Amino acid sequence: MKGRKLRMGMIGGGSDAFIGAIHRRAALMENEIELVCGCFSINPEISLSSGRSYYLPDDRIYSTWEEMLDKEAQLPECERMDFVTIVTPNKFHYLPAVTALDKGFNVVVDKPMTFSLEEALSLQKKVRETGLTLALTHVYSAYPGIKEMKKRIELGGIGKVRRVFVEYSQGWLTERIELKGGNNAVWRNDPRQAGKGGCVGDIGTHAWHLTEYVTGARAVEVCADLQRIATGRPVDDDACAFIRYDKGFTGLLQATQIATGEENNIRLRVYGETGGMEWRQMEPNTLYMKWKDRPAEEVRVGNAYMTDSAKWNTRTPGGHPEGFIEAFANIYRNFALTVRAKAAGEEPTPEMLDFPTVDDGVRGLQFVETMVKAGYDDGTKWVEWVTE
Amino acid sequence: MKGRKLRMGMIGGGSDAFIGAIHRRAALMENEIELVCGCFSINPEISLSSGRSYYLPDDRIYSTWEEMLDKEAQLPECERMDFVTIVTPNKFHYLPAVTALDKGFNVVVDKPMTFSLEEALSLQKKVRETGLTLALTHVYSAYPGIKEMKKRIELGGIGKVRRVFVEYSQGWLTERIELKGGNNAVWRNDPRQAGKGGCVGDIGTHAWHLTEYVTGARAVEVCADLQRIATGRPVDDDACAFIRYDKGFTGLLQATQIATGEENNIRLRVYGETGGMEWRQMEPNTLYMKWKDRPAEEVRVGNAYMTDSAKWNTRTPGGHPEGFIEAFANIYRNFALTVRAKAAGEEPTPEMLDFPTVDDGVRGLQFVETMVKAGYDDGTKWVEWVTE
Amino acid sequence: MKGRKLRMGMIGGGSDAFIGAIHRRAALMENEIELVCGCFSINPEISLSSGRSYYLPDDRIYSTWEEMLDKEAQLPECERMDFVTIVTPNKFHYLPAVTALDKGFNVVVDKPMTFSLEEALSLQKKVRETGLTLALTHVYSAYPGIKEMKKRIELGGIGKVRRVFVEYSQGWLTERIELKGGNNAVWRNDPRQAGKGGCVGDIGTHAWHLTEYVTGARAVEVCADLQRIATGRPVDDDACAFIRYDKGFTGLLQATQIATGEENNIRLRVYGETGGMEWRQMEPNTLYMKWKDRPAEEVRVGNAYMTDSAKWNTRTPGGHPEGFIEAFANIYRNFALTVRAKAAGEEPTPEMLDFPTVDDGVRGLQFVETMVKAGYDDGTKWVEWVTE
Amino acid sequence: MKGRKLRMGMIGGGSDAFIGAIHRRAALMENEIELVCGCFSINPEISLSSGRSYYLPDDRIYSTWEEMLDKEAQLPECERMDFVTIVTPNKFHYLPAVTALDKGFNVVVDKPMTFSLEEALSLQKKVRETGLTLALTHVYSAYPGIKEMKKRIELGGIGKVRRVFVEYSQGWLTERIELKGGNNAVWRNDPRQAGKGGCVGDIGTHAWHLTEYVTGARAVEVCADLQRIATGRPVDDDACAFIRYDKGFTGLLQATQIATGEENNIRLRVYGETGGMEWRQMEPNTLYMKWKDRPAEEVRVGNAYMTDSAKWNTRTPGGHPEGFIEAFANIYRNFALTVRAKAAGEEPTPEMLDFPTVDDGVRGLQFVETMVKAGYDDGTKWVEWVTE
Repeated sequence: MKGRKLRMGMIGGGSDAFIGAIHRRAALMENEIELVCGCFSINPEISLSSGRSYYLPDDRIYSTWEEMLDKEAQLPECERMDFVTIVTPNKFHYLPAVTALDKGFNVVVDKPMTFSLEEALSLQKKVRETGLTLALTHVYSAYPGIKEMKKRIELGGIGKVRRVFVEYSQGWLTERIELKGGNNAVWRNDPRQAGKGGCVGDIGTHAWHLTEYVTGARAVEVCADLQRIATGRPVDDDACAFIRYDKGFTGLLQATQIATGEENNIRLRVYGETGGMEWRQMEPNTLYMKWKDRPAEEVRVGNAYMTDSAKWNTRTPGGHPEGFIEAFANIYRNFALTVRAKAAGEEPTPEMLDFPTVDDGVRGLQFVETMVKAGYDDGTKWVEWVTE
Repeated sequence: MKGRKLRMGMIGGGSDAFIGAIHRRAALMENEIELVCGCFSINPEISLSSGRSYYLPDDRIYSTWEEMLDKEAQLPECERMDFVTIVTPNKFHYLPAVTALDKGFNVVVDKPMTFSLEEALSLQKKVRETGLTLALTHVYSAYPGIKEMKKRIELGGIGKVRRVFVEYSQGWLTERIELKGGNNAVWRNDPRQAGKGGCVGDIGTHAWHLTEYVTGARAVEVCADLQRIATGRPVDDDACAFIRYDKGFTGLLQATQIATGEENNIRLRVYGETGGMEWRQMEPNTLYMKWKDRPAEEVRVGNAYMTDSAKWNTRTPGGHPEGFIEAFANIYRNFALTVRAKAAGEEPTPEMLDFPTVDDGVRGLQFVETMVKAGYDDGTKWVEWVTE
Repeated sequence: MKGRKLRMGMIGGGSDAFIGAIHRRAALMENEIELVCGCFSINPEISLSSGRSYYLPDDRIYSTWEEMLDKEAQLPECERMDFVTIVTPNKFHYLPAVTALDKGFNVVVDKPMTFSLEEALSLQKKVRETGLTLALTHVYSAYPGIKEMKKRIELGGIGKVRRVFVEYSQGWLTERIELKGGNNAVWRNDPRQAGKGGCVGDIGTHAWHLTEYVTGARAVEVCADLQRIATGRPVDDDACAFIRYDKGFTGLLQATQIATGEENNIRLRVYGETGGMEWRQMEPNTLYMKWKDRPAEEVRVGNAYMTDSAKWNTRTPGGHPEGFIEAFANIYRNFALTVRAKAAGEEPTPEMLDFPTVDDGVRGLQFVETMVKAGYDDGTKWVEWVTE
Repeated sequence: MKGRKLRMGMIGGGSDAFIGAIHRRAALMENEIELVCGCFSINPEISLSSGRSYYLPDDRIYSTWEEMLDKEAQLPECERMDFVTIVTPNKFHYLPAVTALDKGFNVVVDKPMTFSLEEALSLQKKVRETGLTLALTHVYSAYPGIKEMKKRIELGGIGKVRRVFVEYSQGWLTERIELKGGNNAVWRNDPRQAGKGGCVGDIGTHAWHLTEYVTGARAVEVCADLQRIATGRPVDDDACAFIRYDKGFTGLLQATQIATGEENNIRLRVYGETGGMEWRQMEPNTLYMKWKDRPAEEVRVGNAYMTDSAKWNTRTPGGHPEGFIEAFANIYRNFALTVRAKAAGEEPTPEMLDFPTVDDGVRGLQFVETMVKAGYDDGTKWVEWVTE
């Protein structure tokens, strides 16, 4: 891949899809990746028109993902794609991913990684076997503010961690809009497409992932309450949990999709023996540091005083806000540099390797399993982390 | 009491006490109450010097609360106090309160109302027997922003309530400062003075009270986790709970005193079918209204569009911030008008009666009992509200 | 005055007046002052009913301020008032103030101090002659956040001051509500009652005063633009100015009463060679410190790290918000302690003397004169400070 | 250009330049433009290494901009670039731009458009002659929040505009870092490279542009004060002005680069007869609407209730923050669609044409001229807009 950009193919992400366009922008922005092919929809006509609107030649626009993986694998190395991005409903992650890996393609996949924990474990096995790279787009942990938070905790900036609070509030599922059809809510609230978790899988996984990412600890036990608040909804639309972590501290997680009027309100707080931290996704360029005996500080992304870890994932100087797409782009850029390094026989740096992997994906599915087990069974208060 | 101010006596509140000075300011501010006597400390010298610094004559400054209640009761009606304010550690609420009621004095008492639920129930009985008035200073529900919240919910402004989130974060007990002595933390972390609850009694009760106050619902079941995070502390310093209310919705309560760097961070959110609300104590003059299909609103205290309930408890026009002492003063003013109305044989208006009573006090102690029962016993997940 | 509260009389402040009630609360809150008499309205009936509602005996409720000053002066020292608070329209400040001083009473008066600069200079002379104390209620400089700002600047906390920005935005005069009558806008927009300045006198003086107070500098030259934006209004409702100060830095002042939707939005910023500061009246308990090479800090009122100057003017610990009335109360308390010290033949401490005086009042009227001269005369850009 | 992306060449933007990388990301993000060539530095070695790091073939990496324009013009149409982006110091905008136009290339250029007003007028003439498209990257008016503001004002959402306040505060030039060399401050503070204006050209133009953009009015007269606050600086580092607009309202503009601790603080407010608006660049996804008799609203980018104009320039749903680079990308995308439409002989839509043009560039230089004329000459207060 020396002297050229990485070549990306897409499964999903037609012109009728929101998240596909985000992935594309994130991938292209850094001038490290180009889009070369795709199967953009299960509807071949939409796939074709989408591909054309992305300025692809017709022969690189495919009708099925199987066709795409087959044909791309047969192209000469100087032409074929280097990796595939999978942005389909959860149910349709596993098969394309495992097939792509089998054919030698690296993979980027949206979270939750698979439909079930079983699939996740199988995919993990495949990644290990092939030695290829899989990135999972837990976008929120890719914000520079979160990088700073992780690094400062690691460096002991707030002392021993004692308490983690994370919340993720949305209001878009206040009503059962999935019944109207034609929107993102349909598959998310269909257990046959989304899996066992509703809210807990869709956004709860993000919230949980943030806590493990910034603290470096792992959840070991939960006491949870999952609710189906909108009448008749077959999956949870609200979830909360007390969490115990292996490093000895505890957490409180709250995720809801029926908080009327909330947009995408993530708030993460970590308190240690000597300081506290707070970050909010909707104003992601500020990290609040709170202290025992002196004024709280507003650590602002883009300033010279930031740690290297945050700087590596920042593009603009302080006061020039970065947002959601730049966070996404951090994953793609780090993934691309890792793939490139490995292709060149080099060891990727820790900065390059800083993106969620198949192992995070497995833990994400375990999280959903654990929450579902703990959240409906009133008999037992504390439930151990489900591993398989 | 016609044509004159109400006469207040104080138990506690010497010049070395923080909360006593707040009570005094709150009581005096509205020109409805005057301070006429007090036993300001268990140390008679401090009581005397304090009383003098409050410009009281020596014969109205008492060495013990028993002496005070005795002597005041013997004074002619045109001189003696009308009510007593009790601002001592929890352990020393019950006896003075019940004695004052016995002698015909109305009572204002800080929360939690008593040391134990048993005392609370006994005090409730006494109030009912005497027909006198007892006000409990749950100050946070006296903010005009909270009044507005309650009224709007009552009027259906956000539809059927579905979810309540309340948090109360402080950091002042991050270290075991109670071991140093000479501060407010000493009795609060001594179960013999504070009762069964640490954090849960000190601030958890405020958080819980807010949820019941604004929704008009009552908690019926909790799943809780109480922690003693600072090593060796004999009472909880962190508490969280899932709560089920009798009106069919659920709540999440979080209270902590080891959130390093937090001051007095109360945040209350209520989500209904058509809207959401958020209020934060540290910037109490804004109430955020969130809507499904239109922009969130910043409802600001002091504006003409506020409900009468908020206006009754507001002094200044929009943009002239009211604070903690004004909230306190709302309780004293409403209490004073109630006492005055009853003395005149009139029915107090609902606005006058809008202050926490002995019944709230009983529920507060029940809350502590319930939380303690649920928070340490890992076997059972959901614990029913403890009534006695 | 030893062993007793100071006795306050009021001119103005009937039950139909907003600002009178604020003065009363501020005066009473600290238990240093009691209300003993007043002439609360030019309407004797309103004066009487107001006084009764304040629980005053009928013989201390007066029909005219002349009568009040006469009769109070004839009362024995153990009864008569110690000072008078004047809360009438600007036009009616001077005569009562100068008469009160002549009869030996100290004075508290609202700003602007007088109707004209001539009156202000005369009043200044009278205060100097009598040696009595006059406090001017520039309430905004009495907030603890502003005290902290002043002290930190004085201590060199932000280096040499280079630039001051102050703004004061209100929207309540967007329409000519003065034409409807029955409100505060009537006299404020009548040059015969308010004086030469409209907005510039009513709120511009507050904004200007803040800049001089926190920096210790004095304005020496202005370039201004005064506008009468609401059609037909006879006084300015919007004013802005470039200001040059004697300490070598410059300022920008902006005041407006036609900023639709603004409540009482004061924002003061000072930038020095090594740091910057920002304070906003509507959230007055935070002072933002901005630094060249490190994160901005949120200095919060009530914390142990505050300077003594702020602490002296603070009642509650961090996170228990203080507001407008507490700021007002700081002036009354400091004034009362000064009067008391002087009566006892003692030297008031600098903390006690920290309230605006007759000299600030004179400068306030000079400010209005200077702005009016500079703001309408397009020929000259820079106008020197008008001294008489 | 049908069926393919637009081809971009760059002048400037080597790997040592900040703003070049921003332009590149903004151009690439939407998958409408590809980078095909460039002369990235006046240092040919840096140009070469930069171009290679952007994965360009060596024969499309040029040593001088003259060579680039020559050679590209000689390439067959199916290969040569469609437009050139010029991201060099002000002094080096005009010649490349006019030459590119002469050779038939469209142009994107950073602001201020040229070194002098004379150049600007000449460039305007050239654009008109050639019929080609020139976009000026006044990035701040490309934020969706600003689009919403403009549209709402146009639709009468706040009634007749009365007052505009704009401020742009930075602190990075607090010290004379230009003396250290090796940074962006060097040419910006060198009148031979930057032109007559320092702060007024660098950021004052942005602030002024925002006011004209959102109101659709034109400045006609200013009263200004320009200062050189850091000792010895040869250009202004602080500028403020009263501005009169042709639509009858007035504005206040404040720009400073010595506000220690400020990052990139733009705040724009517009007040009309019935409402007010406020937008802040550092949290660009909220537009505050303020009302006379009802609560202020937080209009949030990405919601269904936004106007089409904002939606066209938004990528993500509410709560997924967009930032500086997305605003930049709006200009590139709109420019690209305009160029494409014109190439296809179609009329670009108003949405496509919504980017700053050569006419805005001319007015920008006129603004600098007017401010410099008004800001130093103390004799005259009001200075008419300089047209040539």
